[in-house]
Amino acid sequence: MQLGMIGLGRMGANIVRRVVRDGHTAVGYERKLRNIEELRADLGENFRGSTDLPEFVAMLEKPRVVWVMIPAGATGAVIDQVAELLEPGDIVIDGGNSRYHEDIKRAEKLTPKGIHYLDIGTSGGVFGLSRGFCLMIGGEAEQVKYLDPLLRSIAPGLDAAPRTPGRTGDPSTAELGYLHCGPAGAGHFVKMVHNGIEYGAMAAYAEGLNILHKANFGAAHKGEFSAEETPLEHPEYYQYDIDVPEVTEVWRRGSVVASWLLDLTAGALYADPNLDEFGGRVSDSGEGRWTVDAAIDIGVPAPVLSAALFARFSSRGESLYADKLLSAMRQAFGGHYELPPN
Amino acid sequence: MQLGMIGLGRMGANIVRRVVRDGHTAVGYERKLRNIEELRADLGENFRGSTDLPEFVAMLEKPRVVWVMIPAGATGAVIDQVAELLEPGDIVIDGGNSRYHEDIKRAEKLTPKGIHYLDIGTSGGVFGLSRGFCLMIGGEAEQVKYLDPLLRSIAPGLDAAPRTPGRTGDPSTAELGYLHCGPAGAGHFVKMVHNGIEYGAMAAYAEGLNILHKANFGAAHKGEFSAEETPLEHPEYYQYDIDVPEVTEVWRRGSVVASWLLDLTAGALYADPNLDEFGGRVSDSGEGRWTVDAAIDIGVPAPVLSAALFARFSSRGESLYADKLLSAMRQAFGGHYELPPN
Amino acid sequence: MQLGMIGLGRMGANIVRRVVRDGHTAVGYERKLRNIEELRADLGENFRGSTDLPEFVAMLEKPRVVWVMIPAGATGAVIDQVAELLEPGDIVIDGGNSRYHEDIKRAEKLTPKGIHYLDIGTSGGVFGLSRGFCLMIGGEAEQVKYLDPLLRSIAPGLDAAPRTPGRTGDPSTAELGYLHCGPAGAGHFVKMVHNGIEYGAMAAYAEGLNILHKANFGAAHKGEFSAEETPLEHPEYYQYDIDVPEVTEVWRRGSVVASWLLDLTAGALYADPNLDEFGGRVSDSGEGRWTVDAAIDIGVPAPVLSAALFARFSSRGESLYADKLLSAMRQAFGGHYELPPN
Amino acid sequence: MQLGMIGLGRMGANIVRRVVRDGHTAVGYERKLRNIEELRADLGENFRGSTDLPEFVAMLEKPRVVWVMIPAGATGAVIDQVAELLEPGDIVIDGGNSRYHEDIKRAEKLTPKGIHYLDIGTSGGVFGLSRGFCLMIGGEAEQVKYLDPLLRSIAPGLDAAPRTPGRTGDPSTAELGYLHCGPAGAGHFVKMVHNGIEYGAMAAYAEGLNILHKANFGAAHKGEFSAEETPLEHPEYYQYDIDVPEVTEVWRRGSVVASWLLDLTAGALYADPNLDEFGGRVSDSGEGRWTVDAAIDIGVPAPVLSAALFARFSSRGESLYADKLLSAMRQAFGGHYELPPN
Repeated sequence: MQLGMIGLGRMGANIVRRVVRDGHTAVGYERKLRNIEELRADLGENFRGSTDLPEFVAMLEKPRVVWVMIPAGATGAVIDQVAELLEPGDIVIDGGNSRYHEDIKRAEKLTPKGIHYLDIGTSGGVFGLSRGFCLMIGGEAEQVKYLDPLLRSIAPGLDAAPRTPGRTGDPSTAELGYLHCGPAGAGHFVKMVHNGIEYGAMAAYAEGLNILHKANFGAAHKGEFSAEETPLEHPEYYQYDIDVPEVTEVWRRGSVVASWLLDLTAGALYADPNLDEFGGRVSDSGEGRWTVDAAIDIGVPAPVLSAALFARFSSRGESLYADKLLSAMRQAFGGHYELPPN
Repeated sequence: MQLGMIGLGRMGANIVRRVVRDGHTAVGYERKLRNIEELRADLGENFRGSTDLPEFVAMLEKPRVVWVMIPAGATGAVIDQVAELLEPGDIVIDGGNSRYHEDIKRAEKLTPKGIHYLDIGTSGGVFGLSRGFCLMIGGEAEQVKYLDPLLRSIAPGLDAAPRTPGRTGDPSTAELGYLHCGPAGAGHFVKMVHNGIEYGAMAAYAEGLNILHKANFGAAHKGEFSAEETPLEHPEYYQYDIDVPEVTEVWRRGSVVASWLLDLTAGALYADPNLDEFGGRVSDSGEGRWTVDAAIDIGVPAPVLSAALFARFSSRGESLYADKLLSAMRQAFGGHYELPPN
Repeated sequence: MQLGMIGLGRMGANIVRRVVRDGHTAVGYERKLRNIEELRADLGENFRGSTDLPEFVAMLEKPRVVWVMIPAGATGAVIDQVAELLEPGDIVIDGGNSRYHEDIKRAEKLTPKGIHYLDIGTSGGVFGLSRGFCLMIGGEAEQVKYLDPLLRSIAPGLDAAPRTPGRTGDPSTAELGYLHCGPAGAGHFVKMVHNGIEYGAMAAYAEGLNILHKANFGAAHKGEFSAEETPLEHPEYYQYDIDVPEVTEVWRRGSVVASWLLDLTAGALYADPNLDEFGGRVSDSGEGRWTVDAAIDIGVPAPVLSAALFARFSSRGESLYADKLLSAMRQAFGGHYELPPN
Repeated sequence: MQLGMIGLGRMGANIVRRVVRDGHTAVGYERKLRNIEELRADLGENFRGSTDLPEFVAMLEKPRVVWVMIPAGATGAVIDQVAELLEPGDIVIDGGNSRYHEDIKRAEKLTPKGIHYLDIGTSGGVFGLSRGFCLMIGGEAEQVKYLDPLLRSIAPGLDAAPRTPGRTGDPSTAELGYLHCGPAGAGHFVKMVHNGIEYGAMAAYAEGLNILHKANFGAAHKGEFSAEETPLEHPEYYQYDIDVPEVTEVWRRGSVVASWLLDLTAGALYADPNLDEFGGRVSDSGEGRWTVDAAIDIGVPAPVLSAALFARFSSRGESLYADKLLSAMRQAFGGHYELPPN
């Protein structure tokens, strides 16, 4: 089968690599000729590319399969452009991180033209080439079925995890690593919630490890506590000099909190035990926000996911005005003064 | 009636002022002679003081009433000292911010000696002289009753607030501003929870006003959003240049969030509209922590009070290691880089 | 000056009462003739009403001032209807609880017709008649100025609160209880955040009082703790039988947490000490959600306000599926069984 | 090497099985003869047991290694008992879920007698036999080293996870699944934080899946919204009928949130897709509480871990009084009535 890929950045290129290595062919579009050439050198004649969009479309077999894998901000315009060049029966896929609202609007626009639209939330990050990509798909069932050979090649496959007890016989596609989640937008909806969970789980590790990091507070704090500090009642309970990188390593084997995120954390702490490389300003790219927005819309409590989101905002200094207000109130009612910086 | 006061700082001195102005007499102990002289100059002969503890005790009528009003860290030792000088039937009061665990232990120690112990959580801050002090009392009912004339003078009195609908006839002591809450520790327990609530309410104002403060984000953010930022979908909704000090002022009249804390906030913002005086490192002096500890011990959910507490910790930079971990994870799985500082 | 009011429910009728009592005249529109007649009986000839919208409009002096005070769900349609009957120079006001997005859209629609649109977030609830209403206003400055005589009558006035220290001379309108917050939508934006803060402050009281309510847990829990319960390490610390209604009363005078919400809480607990009237399913009517949405849009941390919001969702059973998942996980990894219901 | 095990429940028996299968011998103490006989039948002559504590101790080679693996509530008394029977040089291990404070006290009590005390936080639950147990160890380095052959057999071993990139050569013990974390208490301290993280990660999944579970809210809510409900602005965005069990399955392969907890969740949802077996009353057995307590003591923010903890309290109905208070306040200021139950 043939895959057309718009955007040969890391994600797009690695998806192409997985399908071509699995016996399919691929055609790529990308502004940077160099990216095309590199992929050609890697994959040989089963991959061709173009820096010209109409030429790219012309290189595709019908019905055309066009997977768009570019930054979310640019996706809408590119889909509009390419849709002008497509014909009824063709399939266009947004594999990026669009908000699912956009998918619903795009499907409504493309369906009357006979063009099929799929949204495929794609997880796997920089490890997707070797691990395979987890695919969460929204759109019409018929097209998802049609694309099955490609999806199967992109996804990790059954062996990527031990089979869930009780599941036997032919695996479901979910067991292979891809799932048709529902109509337009359902793929990005599930991917959005996936990222929301990711924020919460990341924060759980970060908070816990921060406690371990400061477990020697009783030993470290030799001096007196000022009137504006809470004295530590039991310094004898906080005399531990914990090797946090080793703790993350030991938890990888046999513990309840073993996970891929923990694997990565252990790797990051092994490479840079004090995390000197980082300043602690944590970005967020939208999905965590949209997850909380969705929870609020439908009345579902999300205290953990929202706490994780807001901790990122705070890490970027966005609490400052609120904090100043608190200090101002404390001074107003109690005559308290702020502590000087550490 | 006569009140003995150990500690003539702002709180202790103002309590003395209220009782003497109401026709009682008072005796003060304090290391700084100057504080004693000032109070004497202010109150005349109905106040006497000493810088010598035994002399102070000797100046008191029996049964002696000794109110200790000094920083929590020093209270225990001073109570031990003065208890050595007291006799059966005397009353010693901790009016400071001790953890209520201490009260239980002290009462157990003093009761066998025939010395009565009361814990009186005292709210009112720097405004207590004019507003009166709100008193939350733990200890034996008989002693609370005995002290009634003094408590009545220290507390704000019935007119400090409109009477609660339905309450008629002789006011309860709660309506006068003091309450016997239960046995030893109950006063500080109620005061602890009072402060826990205070943290939550303060944070509610601070978070809300921070939103108003940044309500012009759509206008302020002229440039493009980078790949590591979430684009603002509707900049047209965030074009407001809100006068936050005036908003706090307007809410003081007729709104549901009118409160004394809001009065103080309006005052602070009027005096220093940009809060330039403050750095945003918010202290906490224990009660908020103990409130959450108590909630955890007895299995009561306290998501708001704990979020308020942890925001203070974060304001002091205590999230840094956790934040670095989040950035490290994001780089590990997604190749994301941190945003540079603002 | 003359006020036209659409909707003579409690809020609308009380606003009319305040302006007429202050020497203005008012015209009301309302489907229920009875509401009109009642107000007429109360206010005499300075109030007239109609159950017919065109007749109502015809009764108004030009430039007409039409204040719409009906449930948010119906406001949009009514404003559309009445706008058809208005002329350039007329003023239409939404005094209800619309989302501020709507205000921006309505102003855009009405401005080309020469009709002025104001959004006035109105706080005061069932007590507005006596306390006055706190008014947060969005729209054009000129119209706000024109309406000044009416706004002044509706708002509480300077004496409703002690003047903020430092403020002297002619009071600002904020000191009278009304504030022009900015262009269209600014009034409802500030009102929205006001309600968000209200959620947070309410939750702070509720959580704290819940701790007091259960402060006798050590005495109450006589039995053994099962393997699925956390034993209480220090039962001696939780032996308090706190009179929660009296505590809310004592905090009303002199304490840092004194507020109008506390006044109401004390009243509710005096009337129904065990709150038997309530089931604990807490509604939310939008503003708290929109406040958190806004915080998320502009990247402002709101951990306390969101925790308060989500607690309401949970109170309505919306955590159930999540809770079942937690129990399922605990059983899966640890063989733990759920505790039976209390 | 020889292991003495007190408590042959699931955890204790499986630890014994792992050491005996690896060529060591074991002696067990347990009140229920049946448990001993079963293990004997399974393991043959390399395992012996007794229902009599002195006999058990007499069966051990010196220096004796006594691992206590019983419910936390009973551990202290049993350690006291067995310590009476031990001699200088012997080693006693608490492998259960004691609070680390206890370890510090026990070590202080046993050290003067020449008895070595180790605390070994043991994770692995019901799967430990096949997966191996993750061991977090506190105590003297010399004893940890002495026990290395046993620890190595109990822990999962290097192959249980892919090696962390950059780690080469002889693996650290953490890479084998056991770690000496520090002096007495350090093992249970790290295990406590492990469980705290577990709470947070579990809640992240549960909240996210709850959103997916209710993603059809726009389709499901056909009727009008009452005045006490927030209308859903965009029902078209919530029309998804998500197959939550399949989503958990697809995330197991290639996604960022892949984890052992997710594996178990997928298993639980496959076995019981609607979780009918569960009532949603989520227990907590202490470690999550103690983790938050520790965070508070040392001033480390833990908003996510505490939100997860409090959600469990709420699942057991512990918010009820707070929720009633909120409803009472809403009625008081706004005349709002509670919604009837669903």
